[in-house]
Amino acid sequence: MQGDPLRTGRLGSGRPDPVAEFLSSMAADRWIAEADVLVDIAHLLMLERREILDSASARTLMEALLTLRSEGLPEEIFDDCYEDVHAGIEAYLIGRAGAEIGGRLHIGRSRNDEVATCIRMRLRHELLDRMAAILELRRVLIERAGEATETIMPGFTHLQHAQPTTLAHHLLAYEEAFGRDFERFGECFARVNRSPLGAAAFASTGYPIDRDFTAAALGFDGLAVNTMDAVAARDFALEAMNACSLLMSTVSRICEELVVWSSAFVRFVELDDAYCSTSSIMPQKKNPDTAEIMRAKAATVTGACMAAYTCMKGLPMSYNRDLQELTPHLGRAVGETGAALELLAGMIASARFDAERMREESAKGYTTATEVADMMVREFDLAFRTAHAIVGRAVRKGTLDLETLEEAAGEMASLSLKERGLTEDRIKSALDPEYGVSVRTAPGGPAPAATKKSIAERSRRLDADEVWVAEASERIGRALSQLVADAEEFIK
Amino acid sequence: MQGDPLRTGRLGSGRPDPVAEFLSSMAADRWIAEADVLVDIAHLLMLERREILDSASARTLMEALLTLRSEGLPEEIFDDCYEDVHAGIEAYLIGRAGAEIGGRLHIGRSRNDEVATCIRMRLRHELLDRMAAILELRRVLIERAGEATETIMPGFTHLQHAQPTTLAHHLLAYEEAFGRDFERFGECFARVNRSPLGAAAFASTGYPIDRDFTAAALGFDGLAVNTMDAVAARDFALEAMNACSLLMSTVSRICEELVVWSSAFVRFVELDDAYCSTSSIMPQKKNPDTAEIMRAKAATVTGACMAAYTCMKGLPMSYNRDLQELTPHLGRAVGETGAALELLAGMIASARFDAERMREESAKGYTTATEVADMMVREFDLAFRTAHAIVGRAVRKGTLDLETLEEAAGEMASLSLKERGLTEDRIKSALDPEYGVSVRTAPGGPAPAATKKSIAERSRRLDADEVWVAEASERIGRALSQLVADAEEFIK
Amino acid sequence: MQGDPLRTGRLGSGRPDPVAEFLSSMAADRWIAEADVLVDIAHLLMLERREILDSASARTLMEALLTLRSEGLPEEIFDDCYEDVHAGIEAYLIGRAGAEIGGRLHIGRSRNDEVATCIRMRLRHELLDRMAAILELRRVLIERAGEATETIMPGFTHLQHAQPTTLAHHLLAYEEAFGRDFERFGECFARVNRSPLGAAAFASTGYPIDRDFTAAALGFDGLAVNTMDAVAARDFALEAMNACSLLMSTVSRICEELVVWSSAFVRFVELDDAYCSTSSIMPQKKNPDTAEIMRAKAATVTGACMAAYTCMKGLPMSYNRDLQELTPHLGRAVGETGAALELLAGMIASARFDAERMREESAKGYTTATEVADMMVREFDLAFRTAHAIVGRAVRKGTLDLETLEEAAGEMASLSLKERGLTEDRIKSALDPEYGVSVRTAPGGPAPAATKKSIAERSRRLDADEVWVAEASERIGRALSQLVADAEEFIK
Amino acid sequence: MQGDPLRTGRLGSGRPDPVAEFLSSMAADRWIAEADVLVDIAHLLMLERREILDSASARTLMEALLTLRSEGLPEEIFDDCYEDVHAGIEAYLIGRAGAEIGGRLHIGRSRNDEVATCIRMRLRHELLDRMAAILELRRVLIERAGEATETIMPGFTHLQHAQPTTLAHHLLAYEEAFGRDFERFGECFARVNRSPLGAAAFASTGYPIDRDFTAAALGFDGLAVNTMDAVAARDFALEAMNACSLLMSTVSRICEELVVWSSAFVRFVELDDAYCSTSSIMPQKKNPDTAEIMRAKAATVTGACMAAYTCMKGLPMSYNRDLQELTPHLGRAVGETGAALELLAGMIASARFDAERMREESAKGYTTATEVADMMVREFDLAFRTAHAIVGRAVRKGTLDLETLEEAAGEMASLSLKERGLTEDRIKSALDPEYGVSVRTAPGGPAPAATKKSIAERSRRLDADEVWVAEASERIGRALSQLVADAEEFIK
Repeated sequence: MQGDPLRTGRLGSGRPDPVAEFLSSMAADRWIAEADVLVDIAHLLMLERREILDSASARTLMEALLTLRSEGLPEEIFDDCYEDVHAGIEAYLIGRAGAEIGGRLHIGRSRNDEVATCIRMRLRHELLDRMAAILELRRVLIERAGEATETIMPGFTHLQHAQPTTLAHHLLAYEEAFGRDFERFGECFARVNRSPLGAAAFASTGYPIDRDFTAAALGFDGLAVNTMDAVAARDFALEAMNACSLLMSTVSRICEELVVWSSAFVRFVELDDAYCSTSSIMPQKKNPDTAEIMRAKAATVTGACMAAYTCMKGLPMSYNRDLQELTPHLGRAVGETGAALELLAGMIASARFDAERMREESAKGYTTATEVADMMVREFDLAFRTAHAIVGRAVRKGTLDLETLEEAAGEMASLSLKERGLTEDRIKSALDPEYGVSVRTAPGGPAPAATKKSIAERSRRLDADEVWVAEASERIGRALSQLVADAEEFIK
Repeated sequence: MQGDPLRTGRLGSGRPDPVAEFLSSMAADRWIAEADVLVDIAHLLMLERREILDSASARTLMEALLTLRSEGLPEEIFDDCYEDVHAGIEAYLIGRAGAEIGGRLHIGRSRNDEVATCIRMRLRHELLDRMAAILELRRVLIERAGEATETIMPGFTHLQHAQPTTLAHHLLAYEEAFGRDFERFGECFARVNRSPLGAAAFASTGYPIDRDFTAAALGFDGLAVNTMDAVAARDFALEAMNACSLLMSTVSRICEELVVWSSAFVRFVELDDAYCSTSSIMPQKKNPDTAEIMRAKAATVTGACMAAYTCMKGLPMSYNRDLQELTPHLGRAVGETGAALELLAGMIASARFDAERMREESAKGYTTATEVADMMVREFDLAFRTAHAIVGRAVRKGTLDLETLEEAAGEMASLSLKERGLTEDRIKSALDPEYGVSVRTAPGGPAPAATKKSIAERSRRLDADEVWVAEASERIGRALSQLVADAEEFIK
Repeated sequence: MQGDPLRTGRLGSGRPDPVAEFLSSMAADRWIAEADVLVDIAHLLMLERREILDSASARTLMEALLTLRSEGLPEEIFDDCYEDVHAGIEAYLIGRAGAEIGGRLHIGRSRNDEVATCIRMRLRHELLDRMAAILELRRVLIERAGEATETIMPGFTHLQHAQPTTLAHHLLAYEEAFGRDFERFGECFARVNRSPLGAAAFASTGYPIDRDFTAAALGFDGLAVNTMDAVAARDFALEAMNACSLLMSTVSRICEELVVWSSAFVRFVELDDAYCSTSSIMPQKKNPDTAEIMRAKAATVTGACMAAYTCMKGLPMSYNRDLQELTPHLGRAVGETGAALELLAGMIASARFDAERMREESAKGYTTATEVADMMVREFDLAFRTAHAIVGRAVRKGTLDLETLEEAAGEMASLSLKERGLTEDRIKSALDPEYGVSVRTAPGGPAPAATKKSIAERSRRLDADEVWVAEASERIGRALSQLVADAEEFIK
Repeated sequence: MQGDPLRTGRLGSGRPDPVAEFLSSMAADRWIAEADVLVDIAHLLMLERREILDSASARTLMEALLTLRSEGLPEEIFDDCYEDVHAGIEAYLIGRAGAEIGGRLHIGRSRNDEVATCIRMRLRHELLDRMAAILELRRVLIERAGEATETIMPGFTHLQHAQPTTLAHHLLAYEEAFGRDFERFGECFARVNRSPLGAAAFASTGYPIDRDFTAAALGFDGLAVNTMDAVAARDFALEAMNACSLLMSTVSRICEELVVWSSAFVRFVELDDAYCSTSSIMPQKKNPDTAEIMRAKAATVTGACMAAYTCMKGLPMSYNRDLQELTPHLGRAVGETGAALELLAGMIASARFDAERMREESAKGYTTATEVADMMVREFDLAFRTAHAIVGRAVRKGTLDLETLEEAAGEMASLSLKERGLTEDRIKSALDPEYGVSVRTAPGGPAPAATKKSIAERSRRLDADEVWVAEASERIGRALSQLVADAEEFIK
């Protein structure tokens, strides 16, 4: 095995293995290896077009690169004896084309801009994948909401039965939240998809390179212009991790609900067996493990984000090796988010919601007490706070009926509701959960008419978002295909 | 002092003081008190227009609210005996207008939507302020860069002298980074400036409220539509904290540089006395304290952000009291960011950069060795990696001149550079930092021509961004002025 | 108002207000002001005894300090025009005793060692307070466990009914966890209670100071020896914050359970009204707000901890102003932990557990299925995994009785349990939760005999821990009383 | 390949691959696989001794386990089709011994206690390893300090030259800090090394198990008594991560200094080539990469810690699957800490400190100005604050000599120092760094006598700490050897 070609001049004899392992980014570099070959191809084409490199050398190198592209990177490239995949590829090229030619590819660039370019290429791909997965999740939520616009259930505040709502309304709350996550991923994508290539170590280069050419060839939407910022900044990575953390924060909430709703106390949902485990000792158990682990993954992603912030804190310009340590956190954050998203859509799509249990609980816990108070305000001209106090007192007495309300009205406000015309029937109709839901017709409210309108609006938004992702993916795919085609044309 | 009007019905006797203090959000509620009165005014106008509240009661309440608006909230409203400022204001209204009328303002809403609305109003204001401060900082950076396009300095990687660049190039790296922060704040603003009002507890209300009216009256750009999401989500707050953390991450880097550059070793900059302290014991000291504390504030903001993530993890729908604990973290994050930003622009504007020291250092540490290697590649047809190895070996010998290069070429590549025509003069010109900078003309590079072009482009961007902030601020200001005018008209 | 006495020599004219406010640690310094006066007194006594300061000057200064001690610090000392409380006190002394004498107290020390000493004094006090509060909490848990050794309840894994246990067993799990927190606080205390005084800026001083004297006078258990470490390290503070975070992590878990157990689904507990709130709109609600906020406080404390880590990352030796920003995080972490602890003990002490509901639920969800499997293993010689599979299959059939078990045995293992002698009665007795609990007699298990033994052991441990705290508190109190007495004696 | 033996009874058909991968802890379980076999052996011996399992079955199982022990676990055990390594081993045993016997090992325990036991066994091993590495690092620091008690260097505050000190004093600051880390690891070890085995799912078991036997056999120092706490708590893991974070926080500081000291500005140290890298483009560079990456690892460890806190927040009793996600964070935290520690000792041991550069800088930046002020206080009876102001003013004038001091004294205090007898010679001797160091003889100060005393004391402490680690390691090693010997004896 060859030694790292970079060390031969400046530094003394090789380093001990534990150091090599400590310094090597190889484990993380598999993440960007495919991008690296594309970057090499684009850079090489540019060098040749700008006549920085002679055509013969360029051809030799391009043949080797296209072989890597078509056959995949051989395992030797990832050996820990190289500091990184860039060094591994260079050693491979030198092995194939000799030191004279193999060493020429690195003209006019540095590993600093190279790695930044590779990370952005990989990351934009991950972001688009995550966006597609969010869309799938939102589609499932909208579809399940569509089935459940009249599925009455108790809504909760403080985990207490609060007011009746519908399962559709509940699911749409999550869909709207994930819609904002989608926006954030898209905005992040716009900042990620800028090319740092040509920034070299940080000061660009004296060679007459063409940054716009390589940017376009690699499917970037433009340049990360300032060359020092281009290699030193990682806010694009942190922003992606933030977007993942925020998304996973909401995922942890829906998972918490799935865990609670799966409990024997609640039984609002039964998750498909595929997403559950049993106990090694308690044969009756069916545990919502996938939801639990997914909930925990939110912590994993946040922790990766925290690590990245701490890593960046107080680093002077421009490139510092600390940045290498950031990439695995990024990979973990977007990777775990992807794994969770993929399963979540399926878990919700296959969940069996128990409408009967939901209906049963929606009348418990005095969830319609607000309606009773509201009714007294509207029909018997009480101040809201007075009505609120009377109903609260009646609840303390253990039930909500004409007798307890009348007593409470006497105690709290020295008035008689009976005299004002309140009847047992009027109370009963106000206590009916269906009634409570049906009157909540404000935009975004739980009344079936309102949720159906929301579903229609959100579906249109979803369709537009799908077009966006498809177009962005295609734009990049087209550029990369063209690049490889140009490279193949060149060596013909 | 009156008791909390909310507790009288449902709960037993008052709570002990330590509990009241623990539960009270009063300390944080000063942050949203001004917004709360505006929300009350808008809600009241809507109730009256929709005939949910009779005009006479509305007039009485409006008079009280306009008094609060014009005279400020009396201290009694912030007493810890109230759980929050909403309860304090209601108690004030009851005190002025009696329980009958005072208790009517809360019709058709809940503290859940009220507090979410207030936080968003305060936050959008903070975001616009931060954006204005970022613009000021960027303007300072661009101006100082404009003075320094030919101020040669060493650029660093790994805190090692690396290649020559200019101060302008270095400052513009930060300006470009802060430009992205500006974008993120603006995108966050768009998600923050949506009205949750009318969501009530989470299920909206049976009253025929007009959510669009209150949204427009309060200067929102639209609704937070789904009413459960509207009260339960705090991703808008977390996103703002993320934006602050990212910005402060970059601030910590520039501060680190100011600290390092202020050291007696470096002396690239002398900060104005206003931003420095001396020692209580070492009379000669001039310490860059402001930069140090600012660097530490990055940690404070990140910590607030992490607290918020942890707080939200696994909370089920819809509102949970945990959310109250999040608001002070938000206030701290945006507040500390604001304090830091305000000072940073002034600190950089008043800093005295020492061009002579920078020039002196730019020739040290072999910063132009890359140029020597590049020259050998271009003019003597060496492979880049070979040239790199030869120069590296020569550096190990202690100097870069014809003799050491010739020796190194023999050792590393068995060739003679002298024979290929290399002269001492050619080496000297390649070693000249001005030369090294002048050839780096790629977009975003340090050559004066390139930085001047960047300055022009960035200035145009800055102007456009200033228009954006001005328009957003004015739009909100106009809506709120109109709201108060309408309220005053109503009570005439 | 006087200017900051420290700035007059080295630095130019005063600084603008926003900078003064940004740099000032005054808000946080109230936290250490009382300690500061004690440190001044001890330092002054030492200076006089070592004849570094003449007795007359020392007497004048001591009179002023004892006035501050007895009458409290006047508000002017906390003015933001001083960078910190140390400067404020010095200005006060100069105001009283003139510049000649007032300026002498700072001989042989620096603010760096002074502030480190003050923080440690305040922190040790906070730690002992927290330890006392943990003891109170543990006592409550043990007492409530003592009442509940036979209160059968379902234990949960994955929030699923798992196996029957007792409330005592459940409460003792928390008590044991808090016992470890107590240990950690005590070990942290040992590292906190070391005196950095005399380290001066970091290099100690040329004056013949007596570090051991001031350490003993201030109640420290020894020195933070190396003087650079003494001013530069804050691991003692981070360790305290870690201890708080760990404690609060467990607190968040017990709070989560109180929230879940308070829900209408579960009703295992009713919290005292004092710890609950109602809704502003839903009059029937009784929300476990204290438990929710306490759960959220865990996040606040962790966030403070993370801010501190990020702040310290990569700071070179010795003192950097960044350290100032750490103290408020420390104050928040220990303060919020204290507020939570104080309430938690009371909340649990006053909680009404519903033994009937617990018993009712303990038979649901097949919690005793493990016993059935175990019984089949023991009495009918099945492999555990076979018995587990049979019971699991029977549960899927919807019930656990002779018929379903027999069917399941046929399907899963082609055997007949009836033939082996299994009867309906045997199944019934195995399904009885009381039986399931009573056989779990291993150390730490839920059988009443085992929990009673645990209660006895833990009570003994608690008593010993109480002695520890009392002795540590008294040791410090005695030293400080003696210090003030010596100071008063000195000025007589 | 066999299916997971646990799922067969309760749950439906197999799960899709992505779910299996998501739920599987296999990647992390390699970390505990070796411990798992030992736990199985101890549990099996106990079952047989207590006659819970017949000897014949026990013998068959033991033979299989000892094979695993001696030959290592076959790769099939780690297949993702098993949820975890426990299931993998059980499948292996069933494969060897048939379902009848293979399924019997799990009697009287659960994966909940099993995994907690394995993690503790692995973790105690990691902790002892880390402690040994800390000792090695401390030894290096003490040795290098021993060579450098008279190596004068400038000490820094705010990265400004502050006062002269010695390299020995500086290194000992770190040694003392790492000494506290050692203590924390040891205290954590005491809480980690407790056996949860026998807690089963959380409620222990009805079988007459012997928890004390297995605890002793596995080298534990006692029980994690309460069986619910034993499986549900992970504070032992978080505490270990805290200890790592604190240690790495200090490591990040020493690394920052190595980076700064390696810069061309400072040149206080040259790291051995083995720990450095060069640039791919700048042939002259020698970058302190190991120190940079190590600094970044501090962030990685803190992030893992943060993830763990967030993961645990609000989890109800007892076991939740979220806990599985915590283990990899623990492994990463202790693993990265180990990798860093190992290299750090070597990096410092092999570093070449440049005493000449240090001495040269120690007289710059007016580092001895404090001495001049102190001299004026002592010898010319000035108030400290007055002397401080005069020296500060003189420094602003650009130099510290008789003329500038005299002028400053006139301006600041209207007095003449010449009249009081100050001479140029007296100033010069006070400005001498060697003098400034030699007078700082307080305990822990930089005077050579003081540091030599510290070195002696710290060496004694180090020796004692080494004995502690050796004894703890041996105690565990002995127990485990005995366990395997007993098992081998049993099957003879």
